[in-house]
Amino acid sequence: MKYAFAKRVQHLQSSAVRDILKVVNSGNVISFAGGLPDDDLFPVEAVEAAFSKTFQSGKKSFQYGLTEGYEPLREVLIERMGAKGIKAKLEEVMLTTGSQQAIDLFARIMFSPGDVVLTENPTYLAAVQVFQSYEVNIIPVESDEHGMIPEDLEYKMKKYMPKCVYVVPTFSNPSGKVWSLERRKLLLKLAKKKNVVIFEDDPYGELKFNPKETYTPIAALDNGKHVLYTSTFSKTVVPALRTGWIKGPYQIIRMMAQAKQAADLHSNSLAHHALYHLCCDFDLNRHIATLQKEYFNRMKIMQNLLDQADLPGLSYIEPKGGMFFWVRLPEEINATELLNTAVENGVAYVPGAPFYVSNPEQNTIRLNFTHSTPDKLEQGMKTLVNVFQNAIHLEKQEV
Amino acid sequence: MKYAFAKRVQHLQSSAVRDILKVVNSGNVISFAGGLPDDDLFPVEAVEAAFSKTFQSGKKSFQYGLTEGYEPLREVLIERMGAKGIKAKLEEVMLTTGSQQAIDLFARIMFSPGDVVLTENPTYLAAVQVFQSYEVNIIPVESDEHGMIPEDLEYKMKKYMPKCVYVVPTFSNPSGKVWSLERRKLLLKLAKKKNVVIFEDDPYGELKFNPKETYTPIAALDNGKHVLYTSTFSKTVVPALRTGWIKGPYQIIRMMAQAKQAADLHSNSLAHHALYHLCCDFDLNRHIATLQKEYFNRMKIMQNLLDQADLPGLSYIEPKGGMFFWVRLPEEINATELLNTAVENGVAYVPGAPFYVSNPEQNTIRLNFTHSTPDKLEQGMKTLVNVFQNAIHLEKQEV
Repeated sequence: MKYAFAKRVQHLQSSAVRDILKVVNSGNVISFAGGLPDDDLFPVEAVEAAFSKTFQSGKKSFQYGLTEGYEPLREVLIERMGAKGIKAKLEEVMLTTGSQQAIDLFARIMFSPGDVVLTENPTYLAAVQVFQSYEVNIIPVESDEHGMIPEDLEYKMKKYMPKCVYVVPTFSNPSGKVWSLERRKLLLKLAKKKNVVIFEDDPYGELKFNPKETYTPIAALDNGKHVLYTSTFSKTVVPALRTGWIKGPYQIIRMMAQAKQAADLHSNSLAHHALYHLCCDFDLNRHIATLQKEYFNRMKIMQNLLDQADLPGLSYIEPKGGMFFWVRLPEEINATELLNTAVENGVAYVPGAPFYVSNPEQNTIRLNFTHSTPDKLEQGMKTLVNVFQNAIHLEKQEV
Repeated sequence: MKYAFAKRVQHLQSSAVRDILKVVNSGNVISFAGGLPDDDLFPVEAVEAAFSKTFQSGKKSFQYGLTEGYEPLREVLIERMGAKGIKAKLEEVMLTTGSQQAIDLFARIMFSPGDVVLTENPTYLAAVQVFQSYEVNIIPVESDEHGMIPEDLEYKMKKYMPKCVYVVPTFSNPSGKVWSLERRKLLLKLAKKKNVVIFEDDPYGELKFNPKETYTPIAALDNGKHVLYTSTFSKTVVPALRTGWIKGPYQIIRMMAQAKQAADLHSNSLAHHALYHLCCDFDLNRHIATLQKEYFNRMKIMQNLLDQADLPGLSYIEPKGGMFFWVRLPEEINATELLNTAVENGVAYVPGAPFYVSNPEQNTIRLNFTHSTPDKLEQGMKTLVNVFQNAIHLEKQEV
């Protein structure tokens, strides 16, 4: 039987990342695909204790809750954001089913079909999926290692009159880059001038390798009117709780709350109560420090193996935090085709091309270093480096 | 600062129910508003034990999961649906963040702006919100106590060529009615003839007062191609876990899964694992039997107080299950205006008017009998009956 779907589904694409994950999860493959935190580092006892406390606290936590989410947890998040310089009132904060939902609800209330969003290129794939599903016109802005290039940003703001600029300025997915403070300020200045909203997606901000460095959120530079800021517990606590949050101007948050009523009434409030207890009773910052140290070590393992090998024409951005290495192979090598060879050899990654809005660079690769243990990391990288070497030298021979 | 929202937000309305709940939750009011199960009947120990088992089972349950949801739980649900006559394969079942999300995702992939859905009138308010947010044309079909009237249904199918008919045929929200088997079969027959999909929303089906009665889901009468069926754990276990599910033709479920990737990646998988253990280790059917008995008793308390009072012109449908009494006051009385008086006197309800797609009957009221203890129920009903009596006799005097 044939079903007549909505026009907008032609824009719905399966996530290339999720598809790869399905394949690699079923086999004996060391995976550098996916943006998965490490299972072994999950604070299991703390989560268990938090749930225990929730169960003892009475039955309210089992009942239907507020659309905006459990207030005490929102208060805790206001405090945590405050430590990063972001000021927020209660009505400016809403809990969401992952920060993914924050992106979805924002797009739903902000964009009519044909409206424009400016993004980095490459950028977070599932955000692009969201924008596409609302038939938003996605215009990429030229960037370098410091962020969007001001001249191109200003030009495109003028030309396309976007409603919003979507950015992942701190340990970006997939590029791992960090915007400079100067570029953050410039983006904000332009956004104010052009009456454009900035959507700052910050899932990895806590995972910095140098604890002494500060990366000021754009939301902290703002007066509360121009920036939406979203983050999540998925990378610092556990992903399965699907708890993220968004902070922004009240008129926008209120509209998003109305959209959320229709979307899922409210998020898992048992998880909200548990996370509240966890934040009160568990030293989350100390746990995050452990993650920072461990992920830094793993990044170094990956980096050393790349550096030690003979890989002419391969380059990468050294991550200052987050979860990903962004690797560039020699231009002639197609990373999507190479993936088959990699998987046959027992290692997987995500090609960079699906993360591009346009003009995908086929020779790019995103490598995750957080999910594998150091041993697996080493083993997998040795295999992958071999695969790269063979591809590079084969290419050289063919030239 | 002014924000230019998407065109579709003009259709976004705050839920009248949620707004009332906000008011009544803050005061000393006995509330018959809301569709809340009773906190005291929550199977807390079972949920606690289930989470305990989940925590012991290893860290996989903390990690990111499949978009479609934890497979073993889906297998359990296939079995439970099988007991109701609904056959399903694994790929035809997806877990959702409440059955609310099932409605939202379905609308997202099914309806272009201007497409038509046929509904009952009144019907579930938050479903109407969803359809409105996707700019769907909502056409109500005439009904009586047995369901949609066939002649009007056929006429409107021909005239409007809907994509879908949305129904809550078992202990409907808000009317509490149950469709007859004959009308269910007729709807299915017409839907097949006209190539229209039926969306069967069944959150209350388990809460029947006569355990010997069976109310055959429309999905059980279908060959698997014409009906989507959604239900939830919210009314039988606990709402806070936000776990529902949808079963339908694979092409539709697959499309909804793609939409879900963008919406929230996946639902709270820790909850999925816990619910799986709960279904294996806890006698859920026996717990449901307890709920059936207890809710029946409460319904009877409410009914007796209505019957015993002098309320000329007041009528109601006796619920055979579910959570709601649908009450009709004398025609001249506006239940929305009367609500202020009720709340001043310490009792709240939801007026029926917001549940109408069109031609709202201002004298209707939805009363929930599940959330209050028997004592509060009695106390609140005595007050409410007084409020009704005063309104009715005042009206008579004015005539």
